[in-house]
Amino acid sequence: MTAPKPVIILVQPQLGENIGKAARAMLNFGLTEMRLVAPRDGWPNPSAGPAASGADLVLEQAQVFDTLAKAVADCSTVYASTVRRRELVVPVIGPEEMAQRIVGLTGRSAILFGPERSGLATEDVAVADAIVTVPINPEFGSLNLAQAVILLAYEWSRSQDLAQPTVREVEPPAPHADVDGLIGHWEAELDAVGYFFPPERTQATRNTIRTIFTKTGWSTREIKAVRGMLRAVVNRRPPRA
Amino acid sequence: MTAPKPVIILVQPQLGENIGKAARAMLNFGLTEMRLVAPRDGWPNPSAGPAASGADLVLEQAQVFDTLAKAVADCSTVYASTVRRRELVVPVIGPEEMAQRIVGLTGRSAILFGPERSGLATEDVAVADAIVTVPINPEFGSLNLAQAVILLAYEWSRSQDLAQPTVREVEPPAPHADVDGLIGHWEAELDAVGYFFPPERTQATRNTIRTIFTKTGWSTREIKAVRGMLRAVVNRRPPRA
Repeated sequence: MTAPKPVIILVQPQLGENIGKAARAMLNFGLTEMRLVAPRDGWPNPSAGPAASGADLVLEQAQVFDTLAKAVADCSTVYASTVRRRELVVPVIGPEEMAQRIVGLTGRSAILFGPERSGLATEDVAVADAIVTVPINPEFGSLNLAQAVILLAYEWSRSQDLAQPTVREVEPPAPHADVDGLIGHWEAELDAVGYFFPPERTQATRNTIRTIFTKTGWSTREIKAVRGMLRAVVNRRPPRA
Repeated sequence: MTAPKPVIILVQPQLGENIGKAARAMLNFGLTEMRLVAPRDGWPNPSAGPAASGADLVLEQAQVFDTLAKAVADCSTVYASTVRRRELVVPVIGPEEMAQRIVGLTGRSAILFGPERSGLATEDVAVADAIVTVPINPEFGSLNLAQAVILLAYEWSRSQDLAQPTVREVEPPAPHADVDGLIGHWEAELDAVGYFFPPERTQATRNTIRTIFTKTGWSTREIKAVRGMLRAVVNRRPPRA
């Protein structure tokens, strides 16, 4: 059983032309699954096709989501491509390390790219298991969207040769939808006891909680167990058999 | 003594815009020396600057030659970037092999790129010591000039410090004593609500809980946060400030 190819997720992409270029970059290295989260100019976008230079297949199969949470719901591991320093406690890795991790897992992986102008928002990065940063010239970092996509697609492609077709982990990490379920469960219980106070700290606290549970690598079964434990201590009774 | 950075040579480039984009691609990975052989529209070219997105330094220092022979005169090793099969007896290598050779030699190296439409002519390739080919999707090979430049510049850069940035663990995983504290905390709360039942299942359940919390990789700070969350939902009141 081999690892599935990573999904490329463009979060709030601005220009159709750049979506087309990203598709072209992907297909050069055999990546075909593109997802778009709230593309600014809607979808389909007539500027995308001409810029794809023949990578129409990627554009035709592209899926559109209104939220990032939905776009990563079936992904076990999410990488956020970014160059800016972040206030988050998310590990930062290089492209090669990312590629090796993707190839070593049987769950589906996703790589996130932010809007052309601003890059990923901090809340979007908080969804990720790791930040992936291409090591560029510290005095001149100017990668556009398609270039960032092509470099990471290239690294993934390189790692394919070295891929061991064996399954490493006993249970794959749960899809992000399950992680979201756990986070939502905790937040609801914490909210009920007035934990999110003062209001100006709430978002930071939520980001911390997200980071804490995203990094666990828990399987679906383990997440279920933790939710059962949480229910038990909150309801003050043992779980039903 | 370290190897000099490779020179990027554009042979008969057509559009100024593509020369600018190539300059930008180069500078992202610290390459600054560009040479132009018989650029179609002359030099300087007003379309180059805007496309360089700030990599003006590279364009300003670019040297122009009327023949490829002159452009490579001071170079010890020349690589021809091409995807087409050639009738030549020139060794074909991948980008990584090229990068390792460049880094391993003290002489000056050059990487040649052909005109956007047609690629390098056979007689230009014949000047090279080796052909370098980026392994792309056999069913969709569509690298433009700037993309070919950025991938080879990236490979060179990687070989510079085989240090891909090592994983930056912002916070190290907590000592096991802290993990034990968290497990003990959960077990006490679960025990208080009669969770460990029936008795013959207790040990297996405790083992599961240990595995779950041991694999998280949580830092001391994160463990503290989770214990605070647990206290809050059990005591049904927010944490003390």
